Amino acid sequence: MNQQDTDRAATLCWVEIGPRRYPIYIGSGLLSETDLLRRHIPKQQAMIVSNTTVADLYVDKLTEALTDKQCDTVILPDGEQFKNLDTLNQIFDQLLKQKHHRGTVIIAFGGGVIGDMAGFAASCYQRGVPFIQVPTTLLAQVDASVGGKTAVNHALGKNMIGAFHQPLAVIIDTDTLNTLATREFNAGLAEVIKYGLIHDMDFFAWLEGNINKIIAKEAQALQTMIYHCCQIKADIVAADETEQGIRALLNLGHTFGHAFENGLGYGQWLHGEAVAAGMVVAAELSQDLGYIQAEDVARVKQLLQQCQLPIAAPAALSIETCMDLMSVDKKVMDHRLRLVLLKSMGQGFVTDTVDTTAVIKALQTCGLDKEE
Amino acid sequence: MNQQDTDRAATLCWVEIGPRRYPIYIGSGLLSETDLLRRHIPKQQAMIVSNTTVADLYVDKLTEALTDKQCDTVILPDGEQFKNLDTLNQIFDQLLKQKHHRGTVIIAFGGGVIGDMAGFAASCYQRGVPFIQVPTTLLAQVDASVGGKTAVNHALGKNMIGAFHQPLAVIIDTDTLNTLATREFNAGLAEVIKYGLIHDMDFFAWLEGNINKIIAKEAQALQTMIYHCCQIKADIVAADETEQGIRALLNLGHTFGHAFENGLGYGQWLHGEAVAAGMVVAAELSQDLGYIQAEDVARVKQLLQQCQLPIAAPAALSIETCMDLMSVDKKVMDHRLRLVLLKSMGQGFVTDTVDTTAVIKALQTCGLDKEE
Repeated sequence: MNQQDTDRAATLCWVEIGPRRYPIYIGSGLLSETDLLRRHIPKQQAMIVSNTTVADLYVDKLTEALTDKQCDTVILPDGEQFKNLDTLNQIFDQLLKQKHHRGTVIIAFGGGVIGDMAGFAASCYQRGVPFIQVPTTLLAQVDASVGGKTAVNHALGKNMIGAFHQPLAVIIDTDTLNTLATREFNAGLAEVIKYGLIHDMDFFAWLEGNINKIIAKEAQALQTMIYHCCQIKADIVAADETEQGIRALLNLGHTFGHAFENGLGYGQWLHGEAVAAGMVVAAELSQDLGYIQAEDVARVKQLLQQCQLPIAAPAALSIETCMDLMSVDKKVMDHRLRLVLLKSMGQGFVTDTVDTTAVIKALQTCGLDKEE
Repeated sequence: MNQQDTDRAATLCWVEIGPRRYPIYIGSGLLSETDLLRRHIPKQQAMIVSNTTVADLYVDKLTEALTDKQCDTVILPDGEQFKNLDTLNQIFDQLLKQKHHRGTVIIAFGGGVIGDMAGFAASCYQRGVPFIQVPTTLLAQVDASVGGKTAVNHALGKNMIGAFHQPLAVIIDTDTLNTLATREFNAGLAEVIKYGLIHDMDFFAWLEGNINKIIAKEAQALQTMIYHCCQIKADIVAADETEQGIRALLNLGHTFGHAFENGLGYGQWLHGEAVAAGMVVAAELSQDLGYIQAEDVARVKQLLQQCQLPIAAPAALSIETCMDLMSVDKKVMDHRLRLVLLKSMGQGFVTDTVDTTAVIKALQTCGLDKEE
């Protein structure tokens, strides 16, 4: 993490997946750089998909950049509980009412929920149209907007209906974080910490050293942090676009986290909050299996706590409920639960050989009880 | 069309699309050859998606082939009017309730509606699982099951939500045609005739000479016919998997046909019936533009009539309604209507330069009126 890295962070990194390679632009004020958006909209139509929160604040900036095109907008309700097929259909309604053709470009303008839904709509509208990610939450900027995973939830499981569909470009204006609610911002930090844990202990240590600047939203610290997250994610996605191998590491904390989110009902805990608690379970399990030490787990918990993130599982859930919800996780294969654990700090690995009793023990350590 | 061709027809042709190449098996009694299905289901789970009509007749044959696997079944209502997101969700419900994982294989067992929906469900369940096409209608056997186009309808347009998702294999048991309703069988012949018109005038002439055998469902004639259709479609798909060019020829009659189907309300006319009338409009327009002769149009009409297919547009629709419905067709690009016409008999071509007045005139010739 030298100065050269930091300068580069202010501009651009690439997701290198052959003919579908695409740029990630990171910087302050990018929403006002109209050419950035326009260069990725070659034809005459665009559809902005946004939510009530973001649209009020920023959507005019985007439409101003596209005044000579047919630029329509669909505003969806804000929140994970609306990430379903019914809301998705509102995007199709609007695309068809406004007669958008195969040459249209969909612009996902909002947080991870908007990115996932707009991206999935793009993947299946007329069997596939291009889209651009313009993420406005920290979570979306460091995670959801990069890598082409799109989806909606099903009542029986999160992200169960979706597609791999890579965007044409990702445009990250760090200024949007200034209006982001603190709870949302902190939830995004859970995914930031994840990158350190699975892939880059230097980055984890840098986060420990700079966490106060980050929480204070100091511009340069944010930019450096986001750049490093995007670079790590871009490298992992380029190596394994459709999650046949290494990409699964990005799911550290997610198998547990999805069960927490789903069990509590979407909208109770934010995704990042659930992932934070899930990472603590994964860390405890990693320690129990002898991979990392108690002081490592303590470091994980401390950094999460500094970000005001939960470090225990939601006590309202029973172990049985969690185990049942995890059994439909996408990472299950032939009835074996696949988990991401820590071989050491900064090195994640995937395993499907962990005993159920060890998983239950870790959930108990993190605050869950068995049913009476 | 020599004897060697016909012998080969009894067995196998391949869709050559690189690493995703797949076989089409065509023959009598294939549903009872259990090994054919089993060899494409490598893991422990399979989900048969079928409809009420087919399930009663044949579904036991499939489940018997898979007794040592977890083989579940979801039975959907039969008909184009059920090809929508709500019905699609019934497939996801069942997959999740029965805890199907990424290694599952979906088996589409029915007509084109089942193939399109099961294929689309496969393309987006957990961001994509494999599937096998086992088409039981003539339409599905010669068209929908080959080529990887999957979709559901939207209230504002047919096949507007979907994906390109190629099957692992297509298994065509020609015996299933024996229980197919005559109207359905005839509707399938519209697509058969289409292959001759766009690509192979020898095949069209063979159809003219053998139409009585075909209508009588003589086994060898059926097999030869289906083999040739699959071979033509496989060649076209291999050359242009995602319809950037030549594949669009397969849409002869479809831009008009989709408008007829949609305008009447799905379920009134069968897809093949609408395509038949659409091909007549395309032929009349091709004649009006000087590409083919009046006697060519007469040949098209005569063959369609021998198959008891409509040769006029549905009089219940107005020209305005049709033109409006066509304007949201997937083949529209930058507001220009793209049509497949006949340069000569046996040679289709795509054009976006046809004048609206010529299109209106052809619709009038085929029986439509303007609004009062």
